[in-house]
Amino acid sequence: MKIKNLEQLNTPCLILDKKKLEKNCNKAREKCRELNTTLRPHVKTPKSIEVAKIALGKETGPITVSTIREAEYFADAGFKDILYAVCIIPKKLETLHFIQKKYNCTIRIVIDSVFVAKEILKFAKTFNANFEVLIEIDCGEGRGGINFQDENIREISKIFDECRYSKLVGVMSHAGHSYSTNDKNEIVSISNKERDDALASINNFTNINRTPPFVSIGSTPTMFYASHLNGVSEIRAGIYMFWDLAQASKGICEIKDIAVTVLTSVIGHNHQNKKIIVDAGALALSKDISANKFMQEVGYGLVCNPNTGLPLSDLAISEVHQEHGAINISDTSWFDKLPIGSLLRVLPNHACLTCAAYENYNVLENETINERWDRINGW
Amino acid sequence: MKIKNLEQLNTPCLILDKKKLEKNCNKAREKCRELNTTLRPHVKTPKSIEVAKIALGKETGPITVSTIREAEYFADAGFKDILYAVCIIPKKLETLHFIQKKYNCTIRIVIDSVFVAKEILKFAKTFNANFEVLIEIDCGEGRGGINFQDENIREISKIFDECRYSKLVGVMSHAGHSYSTNDKNEIVSISNKERDDALASINNFTNINRTPPFVSIGSTPTMFYASHLNGVSEIRAGIYMFWDLAQASKGICEIKDIAVTVLTSVIGHNHQNKKIIVDAGALALSKDISANKFMQEVGYGLVCNPNTGLPLSDLAISEVHQEHGAINISDTSWFDKLPIGSLLRVLPNHACLTCAAYENYNVLENETINERWDRINGW
Repeated sequence: MKIKNLEQLNTPCLILDKKKLEKNCNKAREKCRELNTTLRPHVKTPKSIEVAKIALGKETGPITVSTIREAEYFADAGFKDILYAVCIIPKKLETLHFIQKKYNCTIRIVIDSVFVAKEILKFAKTFNANFEVLIEIDCGEGRGGINFQDENIREISKIFDECRYSKLVGVMSHAGHSYSTNDKNEIVSISNKERDDALASINNFTNINRTPPFVSIGSTPTMFYASHLNGVSEIRAGIYMFWDLAQASKGICEIKDIAVTVLTSVIGHNHQNKKIIVDAGALALSKDISANKFMQEVGYGLVCNPNTGLPLSDLAISEVHQEHGAINISDTSWFDKLPIGSLLRVLPNHACLTCAAYENYNVLENETINERWDRINGW
Repeated sequence: MKIKNLEQLNTPCLILDKKKLEKNCNKAREKCRELNTTLRPHVKTPKSIEVAKIALGKETGPITVSTIREAEYFADAGFKDILYAVCIIPKKLETLHFIQKKYNCTIRIVIDSVFVAKEILKFAKTFNANFEVLIEIDCGEGRGGINFQDENIREISKIFDECRYSKLVGVMSHAGHSYSTNDKNEIVSISNKERDDALASINNFTNINRTPPFVSIGSTPTMFYASHLNGVSEIRAGIYMFWDLAQASKGICEIKDIAVTVLTSVIGHNHQNKKIIVDAGALALSKDISANKFMQEVGYGLVCNPNTGLPLSDLAISEVHQEHGAINISDTSWFDKLPIGSLLRVLPNHACLTCAAYENYNVLENETINERWDRINGW
């Protein structure tokens, strides 16, 4: 593509600051080196091949995905070691088996029930399917997974002992509740429990003496606040690549670290109601306001200088409609400072959800847009 | 496409009930016939050519769009009379001018400032651009638009008196605040004011004696609760095609009228926390919970029988993560009634936002999926 400046872009669109992205990714890899564990980036945040390569620091490597569509997209791009980290159901096995064969890759799948274990066994026998299976351990989030002491771990383990094709390779745990607190000590405790529960669970494997089970854990906060990860095979994390206001609101990152913003244009001045109207609304920003729990003032997103990507005073998107956003202002001199047509950038509450409305990233480096990177949305 | 039953679809996906859609669209056209006005369906809800045709009851007709992407998509499909109902900014004129010429169509554009009026004039003179322009009148929503008495109406009108190419054709108003109440009398008042303000505003046009200005108003609630629309040229509305829980929560429609649902699969049973986990989360449903204001019990969406599309007892999606939704249950017999792999359908809070995550609709008719209709997302 031709070099573009921000003025040439249609709004709303996503801007990805390449230097910040690289810095964020380097920091996570450095942390994993310190922890002496493998990083398996969760690409559900960027859903982009180029971003995944930067996260890995090389052309390919282990990744985590959240949809079948992502699995196929990355397999097609040459990624061979993919963990699909949402519990599998029998009817999705056929597509995953097809992707594995077509692209000669491994898609590790996740289960938390004896029922699905048996169905995988049936499928594997019928189609000679080589699945690698992890049991999800619930370390306190209360979403998917079973307790580390659950007798079903042994039961599932026994089922796979009999299977020649697919195999149970280990466990995975995700401390998603680490996103709900801004208390560092609490994050440390959650991180310890995520690790300890995952490690304890493998004692219930019947075949533990043959192959040591694989232990996959992770979330961005528990990665950065881990005391140690002795015994853990890998860590999964995603939001650290971009960061967002939700993470900044809990002190996990700083606002200046956030790599992704929405570029928007001022489309109106509502003098009567002291509002600046922009063309980034509920679809362009998402209706996620999770940062508001600890940072109420950010509304649907903090408004930034388009060039620096840093907050413009305390301006925030205070309301959204489908294609309109409104910035409430107390100082009417903003009408002069931000005439109709002005560009602004908006920091997202929750980058995973905001980015999902877009097909690509406009990659900003040295104040120009030199590249556009695709994303893969949908299921 | 081959005929499919729900079991053959990948989840999550959108299901569109064709009979309900047709019934909803017929009802709106009937209402507009009673009101003796033209219906200009707002296709920002469906973003689909096939749905627009059903809304119009014919192959083509006047439509309203909310993005340039929609404008081009519909122009390419043969739609000739398009109103782009978000205030225009100068830098978007070039693309719209290109679309008008390429597809030989008219895209009416909307302004609410003297500044943009002058810029349109400049552009029109330079490029011989034939824009048709409407002034947005704020009838109380407090978003875009100017007051019906605003002196800028006369000013803008004067500017266009001098323009040979583009012309000011009238006004538009949108009573978006009609969505915030469940009080029918209040909706009637809002509807009256939407009409009266729009009609009063044209008295400030300088050229009123030459061509009677065009008056476009509308929102779904104000259409259905209009006392009369004497003097109004057309009404714009969109959500009535699909309906959603937000509209049902205010009594504008009934739950059985909602034509669009998200098909999801049960992917887990969390016995410890009494939750059924499904594969429709924040991306599949959106984080819009606007129905909760008047119907708190619906959470992120009401859970339905997959075959009837009608609520399954009082089950609702009580929490969402990116790709996980959770249904809290008090009666654990639901674990037996909804084994892993079961299909469910979820009624959306706000159909415009939920549908935006998908590329197409699986069209349900006589219990089979015979068609898949595309959507156009993005900007």
